Amino acid sequence: MPSFLERLGHLQATKRSRLCVGLDPDPLRLPPHLLQSRALPEAVLHYNCAIIDATAASACAFKLNFAFFEALGAEGWRVLKATIDHIPDDVLIIADAKRGDIGNSARFYATSVFEQLGCDAITVAPYMGRDSVLPFLQYEGTAAFVLGRTSNPGAADFQEPLCGDQPLFVRVSRQVSRWAETAPGTAGLVVGATDIHALKTIRTLCPTTPFLIPGVGAQGGDAASVLTASATDQGHIIVNSSRGIIYASSDPTFAEVAAREAESLRHTLNG
Amino acid sequence: MPSFLERLGHLQATKRSRLCVGLDPDPLRLPPHLLQSRALPEAVLHYNCAIIDATAASACAFKLNFAFFEALGAEGWRVLKATIDHIPDDVLIIADAKRGDIGNSARFYATSVFEQLGCDAITVAPYMGRDSVLPFLQYEGTAAFVLGRTSNPGAADFQEPLCGDQPLFVRVSRQVSRWAETAPGTAGLVVGATDIHALKTIRTLCPTTPFLIPGVGAQGGDAASVLTASATDQGHIIVNSSRGIIYASSDPTFAEVAAREAESLRHTLNG
Repeated sequence: MPSFLERLGHLQATKRSRLCVGLDPDPLRLPPHLLQSRALPEAVLHYNCAIIDATAASACAFKLNFAFFEALGAEGWRVLKATIDHIPDDVLIIADAKRGDIGNSARFYATSVFEQLGCDAITVAPYMGRDSVLPFLQYEGTAAFVLGRTSNPGAADFQEPLCGDQPLFVRVSRQVSRWAETAPGTAGLVVGATDIHALKTIRTLCPTTPFLIPGVGAQGGDAASVLTASATDQGHIIVNSSRGIIYASSDPTFAEVAAREAESLRHTLNG
Repeated sequence: MPSFLERLGHLQATKRSRLCVGLDPDPLRLPPHLLQSRALPEAVLHYNCAIIDATAASACAFKLNFAFFEALGAEGWRVLKATIDHIPDDVLIIADAKRGDIGNSARFYATSVFEQLGCDAITVAPYMGRDSVLPFLQYEGTAAFVLGRTSNPGAADFQEPLCGDQPLFVRVSRQVSRWAETAPGTAGLVVGATDIHALKTIRTLCPTTPFLIPGVGAQGGDAASVLTASATDQGHIIVNSSRGIIYASSDPTFAEVAAREAESLRHTLNG
């Protein structure tokens, strides 16, 4: 079976796309007409499917933010599964679940995301160390993107302080790239688009690690700068945009508008 | 409404219990007779309810490890909710979900755990900083236990290195106790029982922060040493045991055996 990284490389080349569309279905931002004749979980599913149909041709991946699904309770888990089942085979599915627990717990989270839900990758928090990351690298064909330098203001609290002679995010990133050597093609890093200097630093230290890059668009990151800082022949990048695409319009034409935004960003990300 | 910390203090005093029973329902370790006439999700629910009935009188809290429920898929979320609904009012419910995401996502996770599921507290990962922790401190009567020094071997990877003149876990713990001042009674720390020196250090720096302490029993932590290091008049501790209680026996008498183990540990934890 090809590794996650091989599948990513193949899809990015054939679809000419580095774009990941982030599915963050916030009930308060759904197009109002969708809620008129449907219960909330059904409206969320309808919305997700419309966005998927409109943007799948432009994207190499969809990233599903689990928080928005879990907030719907048990029904949310059903909507999550139905949304995943609607995604076509030529788009990778990233579980943005930021799980982080050890040993047996990590294996059960991996079972949930890779086997029960059928996702291709998951985001993972590094704070608990090796026994919270390595269990996610044991599955064939899937990957874990470990938080390196995130795109939010609070990233400065614990990721930036110097640990020895390097910021913690550098220590984490280097360690993840070493773990990746034990299971080629299964480990990546989450590196935000809002700190281009950090992006360049991590790319220099981790030349072959794939990056999942949030923070372009609504959070202020610039797509062209991200490309220059992090896309190389050896170093794949997946650039996520959520709000800038899926909430570009709340009119009945929201899906067409999302399709245009996605196609435009796909084009920009080809440099 | 009383704060989480006030409710904890009241329950610990009236029940004379610092014990938290960890519900980690691993299908491979369920008593075999439970699986003979039931589908797995029903067997898990039956098992959980039996453990709850047997140990609730000895415990101030139950801690539910979400990994084990999510591995059951959409059915798992239903079992999780039904398990929570079975817990009596005089035992606090801790969602061991180790969530960690920012802003809107954090608020949706909080909605899921506090409102949809009705838990009293959640475990939270600190790596993303203030915007991943503070949203969990905005709810009346509930709390977030932030990972400080965890009990696993990999804790040494990123929690132990010196950031400036202090290990990262010390920096995180001090920061959490400062955040707690902005919302009294809503923030605690997860501090493992396997490193008594770290436990003492954090208690000295954070004299009034409640600790959730895993790692006693199967992981090697000693209950008496934990008490000496961390229980003070001002500093509440909740000591979790999972496997040592719930898997003490897999015979048809498993619940009675669990009840004896829980009562014994409750007694030990009163010093």
